[in-house]
Amino acid sequence: MTEDANAVESLWEEVRELSFGTSVERLDSPPSPLDFLRRFVSANKPCIISNAVSHWPALSLWPDHNYLTRSLSDSLVSLHLTPDGRADSLVPLSSGSPCFASAHVERVPFPRALQFVLDSSSKSEEASTRDPSVAYLQQQNDCFREEYSNLSGDCDPHIAWATEALGCPPEAVNLWIGNHLSETSFHKDHYENLYAVVSGEKHFLLLPPTDVYRMYIRDYPAAHYSYDLEGGKFRLEMEEPARFVPWCSVNPYPSPETKKVEVSKFPMYFNGPKPFHCTVRAGDILYLPSMWFHHVRQSPDERGCTIAVNYWYDMQFDIKYAYFNFLQSIHHRPRSSRSRLEDLDEDADEDEDE
Amino acid sequence: MTEDANAVESLWEEVRELSFGTSVERLDSPPSPLDFLRRFVSANKPCIISNAVSHWPALSLWPDHNYLTRSLSDSLVSLHLTPDGRADSLVPLSSGSPCFASAHVERVPFPRALQFVLDSSSKSEEASTRDPSVAYLQQQNDCFREEYSNLSGDCDPHIAWATEALGCPPEAVNLWIGNHLSETSFHKDHYENLYAVVSGEKHFLLLPPTDVYRMYIRDYPAAHYSYDLEGGKFRLEMEEPARFVPWCSVNPYPSPETKKVEVSKFPMYFNGPKPFHCTVRAGDILYLPSMWFHHVRQSPDERGCTIAVNYWYDMQFDIKYAYFNFLQSIHHRPRSSRSRLEDLDEDADEDEDE
Repeated sequence: MTEDANAVESLWEEVRELSFGTSVERLDSPPSPLDFLRRFVSANKPCIISNAVSHWPALSLWPDHNYLTRSLSDSLVSLHLTPDGRADSLVPLSSGSPCFASAHVERVPFPRALQFVLDSSSKSEEASTRDPSVAYLQQQNDCFREEYSNLSGDCDPHIAWATEALGCPPEAVNLWIGNHLSETSFHKDHYENLYAVVSGEKHFLLLPPTDVYRMYIRDYPAAHYSYDLEGGKFRLEMEEPARFVPWCSVNPYPSPETKKVEVSKFPMYFNGPKPFHCTVRAGDILYLPSMWFHHVRQSPDERGCTIAVNYWYDMQFDIKYAYFNFLQSIHHRPRSSRSRLEDLDEDADEDEDE
Repeated sequence: MTEDANAVESLWEEVRELSFGTSVERLDSPPSPLDFLRRFVSANKPCIISNAVSHWPALSLWPDHNYLTRSLSDSLVSLHLTPDGRADSLVPLSSGSPCFASAHVERVPFPRALQFVLDSSSKSEEASTRDPSVAYLQQQNDCFREEYSNLSGDCDPHIAWATEALGCPPEAVNLWIGNHLSETSFHKDHYENLYAVVSGEKHFLLLPPTDVYRMYIRDYPAAHYSYDLEGGKFRLEMEEPARFVPWCSVNPYPSPETKKVEVSKFPMYFNGPKPFHCTVRAGDILYLPSMWFHHVRQSPDERGCTIAVNYWYDMQFDIKYAYFNFLQSIHHRPRSSRSRLEDLDEDADEDEDE
């Protein structure tokens, strides 16, 4: 099997040398549809376009929370609540083994929902004296066109050059309003993604689909948080009947205390080529190609929010997708992973003894 | 290893189900650059465009040999001579093992060169009473723009919608004038290929790059034919110092006598999914995507010639190419190929005994 493991590791290196380089390319202005299709979509290669949405009224209007609450005074929006800002993430059960936990979702009037986001942003400072939830306004089901239709005039209904390149209108447009605690764990989508930041900054970690083994995708039992708004308490409920969700096992930002153990559990992630890291600022668009693994954190604007709109376009299920499935289906063992793991376990044991 | 073999076979099936279908798509008219790039180049998927070059003066002018010899009366052109019409193909040495044999190439005035092609087209009927060579006018080194520049006004200097899609002018334009005996063995090119037929028909067998194992690419010692134009004799000369050329081992059209042995030697080719077969007629363009394996035969027009012009555009070395190299680098054994081979060898023995 060592031969195949070498082949997989060579693939990680070669695709970077041939095509992706070491950082995400930044364009000064929107590309032509042909250029975008040729250099990025066809090559399944990300890019950031500076000033891609600087002309949107949203950029000056939305940082003003009075404007938002006025425009959406009667709108019911989907509020996602978690104890720590991490929805759709792995949470250890009392048994110690992790489950895949979804947020508690509640439809509330926008003004109240926004207040949740703002209140929970100060949570870390004020500890647990107040509401213990972290709120994230999002719903990956075309929520911008459904729940936030009153804001539709503030941005373009689609990204014109992308729509022309991809040959279809977006399948879904989603709005995201969160604070510095909101974090999205590593996952991939079966969509071409145009991700526009309106206020604050988004920090992405990106890994190409060639690196699928480095994500340690495993099946986890599905659970969801249930939150008592009055009592201010979360309960984690396993889905019944049990359902298993394949999800990435890697947390790219382990705490200093757990780092050694995490590195020993996921050596291909931590010891392989660095993930692509990029920051998307207000006015920028990130082209996040289909099937790329991404992890997202955010920095708020001065009023405490990060606001973004993303456009999901249908992807082509072509030879690239067939190659990806092939890669995933071969029986891959990392080179000397066993001995590495054993070495690290021994180290860990020694540490505990000290 | 069986697991990986299954994975490879699933890849052959899946890429057809997802993207390629069972036959080469035919368009009624040239696509827009965006459409061509999105549906075919990005997907690495072939297509035939009917009436793509019907407007070329070449279509009416070139079938007239008087026109050609008049226009090229002083032009020196590259004439490729082989004993059987198969250049760049595998030829068994006296030891029984095959070498990779290139044609004898000679620069001769066009009128004489064309006569060689026409004379050799009647070779099979008149047996070996006359010149035993098969002639093919071709040179894959931009020969149309070099040797045949007097004809440049008869066709477009590039394929406009392809140039716009691919973002660059063609790297090479080649002219091909042959007869029904000329045949090109299975191989692939690192170019996007726009192949226009002017007169007669070209018959292609196509296999996608995912099917690389089905080609049984092996290293063969390089040789070239040397032809004595006066004596009318071929000598096959091994290159000194020895050079090895990786080449496809499969002859897709074995004679009835050798078919059983060929099938037993190359079971993945003969027992796998059918290759894409297509006929490109005068006025048509075949888009032959980069890295696709192709085998070419031809039918002449009523005057005995098949004439074609092909445009090579630079390909992108992107994630598709990295995946291809990965596929090629894994250690693949066909499922139960050994037992299959042994079964067939036994059958063959039995036949000989009968």
